[in-house]
Amino acid sequence: MFDKIRRDDFLKSHLDIHEIFSLKLQNNLCDGAKKHLHRGLIMRLMMMEESIFSLDEEIGKSEEPLDHYLATRLTLLLNAYYLNLAGSLDNLAWALTYQYSLVEEVDENNGKHRTFVQLLSTNFLDQLRKSKLEQLDKELQPFRDWYWDMRQFRDPAAHRIPLLVSHSVYSEEDVKKAQELDEAAAQLIRQDEWRDGMNLLHQSYQLEKHIPIFISENPKIQCYDLAGRVNLDHANWLRIVEVVLRIGFSG
Amino acid sequence: MFDKIRRDDFLKSHLDIHEIFSLKLQNNLCDGAKKHLHRGLIMRLMMMEESIFSLDEEIGKSEEPLDHYLATRLTLLLNAYYLNLAGSLDNLAWALTYQYSLVEEVDENNGKHRTFVQLLSTNFLDQLRKSKLEQLDKELQPFRDWYWDMRQFRDPAAHRIPLLVSHSVYSEEDVKKAQELDEAAAQLIRQDEWRDGMNLLHQSYQLEKHIPIFISENPKIQCYDLAGRVNLDHANWLRIVEVVLRIGFSG
Repeated sequence: MFDKIRRDDFLKSHLDIHEIFSLKLQNNLCDGAKKHLHRGLIMRLMMMEESIFSLDEEIGKSEEPLDHYLATRLTLLLNAYYLNLAGSLDNLAWALTYQYSLVEEVDENNGKHRTFVQLLSTNFLDQLRKSKLEQLDKELQPFRDWYWDMRQFRDPAAHRIPLLVSHSVYSEEDVKKAQELDEAAAQLIRQDEWRDGMNLLHQSYQLEKHIPIFISENPKIQCYDLAGRVNLDHANWLRIVEVVLRIGFSG
Repeated sequence: MFDKIRRDDFLKSHLDIHEIFSLKLQNNLCDGAKKHLHRGLIMRLMMMEESIFSLDEEIGKSEEPLDHYLATRLTLLLNAYYLNLAGSLDNLAWALTYQYSLVEEVDENNGKHRTFVQLLSTNFLDQLRKSKLEQLDKELQPFRDWYWDMRQFRDPAAHRIPLLVSHSVYSEEDVKKAQELDEAAAQLIRQDEWRDGMNLLHQSYQLEKHIPIFISENPKIQCYDLAGRVNLDHANWLRIVEVVLRIGFSG
């Protein structure tokens, strides 16, 4: 019922990207483009791979609640995944900006340039067309809605309530059962029937289950099938990287 | 000669923060402040602890180059550390904004509110004074220079060239030696003296060493003693958290 992360497909696609970097990148890349492709895009690809593989290894293996430290580590890896996903699209935009002089005298600390350099924004795509990259604009257009939807994970990860891989959740039918058990336990403990109370609490904890989801609060709380959502986002990311490298930077 | 991460001191301070949360947070926190303290600040504290502990465990143990996958993992953890550090200061600023109505009808998706809500910015500190939080402003002022310096790690981590924990570096005196060996090796391989060439290449690789630094490129390339820098930044972060919780949110 829950997806599995398509890690083998993704690994194959990552090897394809590494192959483009060793064999097919055009020779006349400027320094700024090289920097953002090699030390930006590729470095982030490797970090995203680390996130994906670790999440795949730990998520959804059993219904036992996750250890709290493990849940924290997976939360960290998931937030890092979305930051690197968004950041690597920024790297592609900077690389194009340098290579095709999309602004005059590119300056990464200039606020206006930083606002402009956003791969799927209207202004950036307009400028691609004006700079004779019509085909790139055309192939990127279909990803715009997805991009702005994905950003709902990037911004909380960076400055608001981070995405959460919870160590456990209660299923809908178990929430009430757990509340009843907790209340009965509290009652017993107040009456100094400590052992019976702890027994009920233990029964309540047994209802907690790990399910392979993450929680986003932006500010509405929503749950996502973790593997399903990563599969969607990573597949789109791979298609965008392929398009930009093929049209923008391949020899 | 290189620092060690002060993990035990930090762990003790983290326990102090958890204690404030269980025992001393004031009772009349509004929902927005609760959210940003519990699911923002505390969640990020736990992620930062995971970064710090894993970095401490793996960094500077030997001079052998790191395995490439391990170097990628540590790079991910270091970038996540700085994003959570900056993000948790944003959480404190949102919590104050909600609790003291620093803007009218707080809206986390409003661009103006998002620009305003930055704990160490001039406008935010001005507003604290106007809202009778003069003491908080006074105790935060000394951290302003540090904050803007630390931001040089946050922004590259988010959208430009990420901070790098390199698997190995050459010491200054070994760079030339390695180049000479590589050139001699290439010469031998061109002459079909494959085995002797590979021997020289192997000698060149032996000069690579792991040293516990990270590299920041923003856009100038600079190296930092990893533990020394994390010690500085984490100690300042802890002082800021302590000040904001004590003056802003303690009962």
